[in-house]
Amino acid sequence: MEKAQTLKGFRDFGPSQMRVRNFVSQIFRTTFEIFGFEPLETPSLEYAKTLLAKYSTDTDKETYIFKDLGERDIGLIYDLTVPTARYLAENSGKIRYPFRRSQMQRCYRAEKPQKGRYREFMQCDIDIFGEKGPLADAEVLSCAWEIVKKLGLDGGFSFKIGSREVLYNLLSDLDVTDCEKQMQVARSLDKLDKIGQDAVLEDLSKNGLQIGLIKQIFANLTNSSPTENLKAIMDYAILLGIPKEKLVFSPTLSRGADYYTGMVVEGVVAEPKIGSVLGGGRYDNLIKSFGGQDTPATGLSFGFERICDVILELGLFANALPNTTTRALVILASPFISPQSSPSPLFPYALKALSYLRKSDIPSEIYLNQKADIAKQLKYASEKQIPYAVIIGPDEVANNTVTIKDLGKRSQKTISLKEVFPLIKFN
Amino acid sequence: MEKAQTLKGFRDFGPSQMRVRNFVSQIFRTTFEIFGFEPLETPSLEYAKTLLAKYSTDTDKETYIFKDLGERDIGLIYDLTVPTARYLAENSGKIRYPFRRSQMQRCYRAEKPQKGRYREFMQCDIDIFGEKGPLADAEVLSCAWEIVKKLGLDGGFSFKIGSREVLYNLLSDLDVTDCEKQMQVARSLDKLDKIGQDAVLEDLSKNGLQIGLIKQIFANLTNSSPTENLKAIMDYAILLGIPKEKLVFSPTLSRGADYYTGMVVEGVVAEPKIGSVLGGGRYDNLIKSFGGQDTPATGLSFGFERICDVILELGLFANALPNTTTRALVILASPFISPQSSPSPLFPYALKALSYLRKSDIPSEIYLNQKADIAKQLKYASEKQIPYAVIIGPDEVANNTVTIKDLGKRSQKTISLKEVFPLIKFN
Repeated sequence: MEKAQTLKGFRDFGPSQMRVRNFVSQIFRTTFEIFGFEPLETPSLEYAKTLLAKYSTDTDKETYIFKDLGERDIGLIYDLTVPTARYLAENSGKIRYPFRRSQMQRCYRAEKPQKGRYREFMQCDIDIFGEKGPLADAEVLSCAWEIVKKLGLDGGFSFKIGSREVLYNLLSDLDVTDCEKQMQVARSLDKLDKIGQDAVLEDLSKNGLQIGLIKQIFANLTNSSPTENLKAIMDYAILLGIPKEKLVFSPTLSRGADYYTGMVVEGVVAEPKIGSVLGGGRYDNLIKSFGGQDTPATGLSFGFERICDVILELGLFANALPNTTTRALVILASPFISPQSSPSPLFPYALKALSYLRKSDIPSEIYLNQKADIAKQLKYASEKQIPYAVIIGPDEVANNTVTIKDLGKRSQKTISLKEVFPLIKFN
Repeated sequence: MEKAQTLKGFRDFGPSQMRVRNFVSQIFRTTFEIFGFEPLETPSLEYAKTLLAKYSTDTDKETYIFKDLGERDIGLIYDLTVPTARYLAENSGKIRYPFRRSQMQRCYRAEKPQKGRYREFMQCDIDIFGEKGPLADAEVLSCAWEIVKKLGLDGGFSFKIGSREVLYNLLSDLDVTDCEKQMQVARSLDKLDKIGQDAVLEDLSKNGLQIGLIKQIFANLTNSSPTENLKAIMDYAILLGIPKEKLVFSPTLSRGADYYTGMVVEGVVAEPKIGSVLGGGRYDNLIKSFGGQDTPATGLSFGFERICDVILELGLFANALPNTTTRALVILASPFISPQSSPSPLFPYALKALSYLRKSDIPSEIYLNQKADIAKQLKYASEKQIPYAVIIGPDEVANNTVTIKDLGKRSQKTISLKEVFPLIKFN
């Protein structure tokens, strides 16, 4: 058969990559819990009309849409915001607000794969639904800051904070009152960092804005101040433990999605060179537009894949994350005694030792090939970087002991099974 | 907008369902680790030709297949066995064998939704690749037994164990030597429990086997004995701690998939009435057929969804799993002092208390609406079943204390912030 392969933009995660992913997702999970965010999961597939309702047209092209066997137009989720909005609308009246929810799932984008961008990726969100006040936004920022610290990325980190309120007020003052025009400006501004001011100017000009007006928008925006609400958000965030200098008012920050209504935020790091590690903001009208109650909302997405890539590339956790989680390999000193392939009489004792280790929550294996000599078994342990070998020979069986070998220090001693537990568990 | 809804056969998991799912998946994850199984994850989408290569034709019809933007025929994974076989083939030579791998991911089947069957579901597998001997099969059974015990399902549990070796040898003895015919018999036998012996007989007769021959097959199979290899598997499983009476030789057990070559197994429970909670077996030729090395393989799938359904339906963990993981709600005794909506002067102290609790790893919230009176805040805590309220008023701020209220016992006392930690953490 022709050799099978993964699709372009899709990835396998072997054990060493999974250790990093599990490490990162564990930090997310426990921190979400400490901040009172409750877990939610929704389907990977939704009706196409649900998925395509709420984005700009750019994202529509990147959504996997197809027909199922019942000829329904369906698609793979592009993010977690829209499925959650659908969930809240569908469960109107059943949810206790304010609802702090966390969600961590795979999402799918049919975009051109490139470094750090994949067609399938882990999305990781927190949001607070049902509360308009600035404390909700500050809570979300505060949880993000805690995660950034636990990931060890806080050194050059800062929150860039803008506001759609500031932007839309300013546009209204300049008589740009059409809603679609206002969102067009927001979408163009989002490309500022990537393509620069001239290109944004050209982009807006193509969309029918006068050059003079655009320049005026830029000037007014750059000189704008935070609203009272944005000031309160930052004050609360500081009280919740975010250092003041980490909160940077960035009036030209806009973010791409049309649905933002208030604060918009991106978390950027100076080192390593990965740019933004999180982003989000307030979106008070999205849930209602899905047919739900009028539900204010604010939240953040974390760049899970980017964070894992950095950790893997820089080998940040090379020492902290062992090559294997297995702590002990049970080894038979003389695997078979008779010239036939009948099992060694040491087996019952070896399997008892193995079961004992596992009952003590020590991750353990036994070498499975019953005919392998001791050298081969030790080689397996050392290649997998298993720290201890628990060796069983006729003397050990006779004396009800085991010989335990520290494969790093290359030292060994013969002890009772009960003495193995503290030795392996706490070293 | 028209109210959005989930697709038929797809489900949302709210916080209380997620607590059960996280509880079950945590048992899987930690037990896999204790037994030396290493985590692997593969994409949700694969080339259609990869997905459709290895099943019987029945499963082909249940696989979501579609074209992506590049007109490639792709599909959503139907199980985890085929993607892993593809992974091993693609990474030939890079993997250290024997390779014990665990995998837990969503899979997709376009089948008719019914109770306990969903179009999207969590699949949860362990397999050992690269070892032919009976100890590998026994290790897989032993890990499964540990999980069944931890789930509390061990009471009426037993492993039904059959063998494709026994079946194929017996068929060869009766001159049914054609490979496709042999697999047809295996596929029909798999339906025995569901449709009964007469229907299986009819099914095989339609596929061109003589009635007399079929009856002979049934008779010989029912009277067959375990092979030496199957006996060794059961002996090792007993040594690894599975009670002897839990291992039941069931010669007519066959399982549906064509790829099995040796032991086949199902784990069934008498109570509650959910039937099989796990299934699998040995499949020594599958990896090679994907273009990889000749790699013997044996493994099991767990019925994750079925297990979660039972736990939810029977309320098995109603007491063990609280309604929320949040332990404390910080409450302002007098939320605002001035008639304006300016924030309470108690806020800085309240947010400091909140941060302190979280730093101590105590999951905590603050009531977000700054204008709510104390009754409303206490109602929120009690509805969410948060066990403690940490109340902050002017006296508490002046004396650097908090008043902590046990919402279950309805008792309260005023203590320093440092005293809160042991009280909440260990009660």
